[in-house]
Amino acid sequence: MENRSEKRKVLSFRNGEAWEEERAVVRETPLTIYVNDQELITLLTIGDANRELAVGFLLSEGFLKNRDGLVSIRVDDAAGEVHVQISGDLSSVEKLWGKRTVTSGCGKGATFYHVLDSLQARPATSGVAVSASQIHALMGELNRMSELYRETGGVHNCALGNTERILIFRDDIGRHNAVDKIRGACFLEDIPPEDKVLLTTGRISSEMTVKTAKMGVSVLISRSAPTSLALDLAGRVGLTVVGYVRGGGMTVYTGKERITD
Amino acid sequence: MENRSEKRKVLSFRNGEAWEEERAVVRETPLTIYVNDQELITLLTIGDANRELAVGFLLSEGFLKNRDGLVSIRVDDAAGEVHVQISGDLSSVEKLWGKRTVTSGCGKGATFYHVLDSLQARPATSGVAVSASQIHALMGELNRMSELYRETGGVHNCALGNTERILIFRDDIGRHNAVDKIRGACFLEDIPPEDKVLLTTGRISSEMTVKTAKMGVSVLISRSAPTSLALDLAGRVGLTVVGYVRGGGMTVYTGKERITD
Repeated sequence: MENRSEKRKVLSFRNGEAWEEERAVVRETPLTIYVNDQELITLLTIGDANRELAVGFLLSEGFLKNRDGLVSIRVDDAAGEVHVQISGDLSSVEKLWGKRTVTSGCGKGATFYHVLDSLQARPATSGVAVSASQIHALMGELNRMSELYRETGGVHNCALGNTERILIFRDDIGRHNAVDKIRGACFLEDIPPEDKVLLTTGRISSEMTVKTAKMGVSVLISRSAPTSLALDLAGRVGLTVVGYVRGGGMTVYTGKERITD
Repeated sequence: MENRSEKRKVLSFRNGEAWEEERAVVRETPLTIYVNDQELITLLTIGDANRELAVGFLLSEGFLKNRDGLVSIRVDDAAGEVHVQISGDLSSVEKLWGKRTVTSGCGKGATFYHVLDSLQARPATSGVAVSASQIHALMGELNRMSELYRETGGVHNCALGNTERILIFRDDIGRHNAVDKIRGACFLEDIPPEDKVLLTTGRISSEMTVKTAKMGVSVLISRSAPTSLALDLAGRVGLTVVGYVRGGGMTVYTGKERITD
């Protein structure tokens, strides 16, 4: 694996004392995605899972629909490039892509106004049920796995789990990249996400809701707060949103029927 | 002012008990910016300072250079639209805009590869000096002003201050919007940011560094962690980055000469 952190010489202050020391900071590096030889976008990432991130991003943004659509991927970690060949006509996606939404809550280029339609075509219908104590156990596991966060304080953590344990753990500078890595991992390793739950340390903005619903996951769990629009969208597509999982408590905002005592 | 939060009926769990109650969530709403009658972008925001946000965004992204460039602004809060007329030729900016970077660490459409040039044309040269105890006092003031965060947990706070006190405080779902609101406020109210410090509750990604440097501010202070690329860029342009201002301590990563005991 690539180095995910770097040491920097810093000047530390505490209680009127100042001293020099080394501190670890999280690595941030550009990754440019090319689709059918055309430069699409540059993401800023830790750089540790470029294949997954590129595939997950292309799935999230509608460039890639299924396994048949993926002709080839070539990853050049040293250059910070992923070259993806996909089948089919790109023109309709490119049109949408021109009209991007940049979200405030940690943005990715979602085509916001077209998102509702595509979401409603895929409501969250999974019958997965998870209990409050299972949610606490999963969030505890997520926090224990967060080594890079403990080292650098610079990442969000995200995981896909069943009701018993975490199956895929990913982290990144942005919580959206972490989700896309998970989506890419599911795709590349043929793991169906539909009967799983998604856990994140980050806030739940509308974009997080959209990403989760598009992935086909019905339960989104966070240690942080959701926004009004995230909950409106979640309500519309039947997604369960659980926030503030911390300190022995949690708040179920939508889709309460999936949460048992 | 617009409503910045909404009440939602939730199901709360704690220590094996479950009960229904109301919880406040932060408002998230789309704001579409039109430039010279052309739709440019949709931001997701609290929606409380749309004029400032639009102007700040256009300044950050290079569409707007100075006061002479701004012909008119019309804000339609109900429709979630800001219509801006600017003078001059947009074609070169539009070209850059086509090649966007979406940052992982809370993205906004920065044209990453062109950013370095523009930054190096404007190094942070201000002689502002600030002491560790002044930084602690400013961060304490920032935290005390964070009403919406205390109510909803859903925003990042940002402020422009001199060494003695906070002059402009703004919050938003995303920390980049909060910075753009401050930049817009400085522009609209004719407040020079160059001799001030910028405070944020959010992490310092490369994009945060770029926004700060482009604004002409030389000292960026956060309660959270920076990334490697943020520090590389800060080092190159001579920006002071102070992180982890919390619990009586702080870490100075770059530009140490501006921080006094």
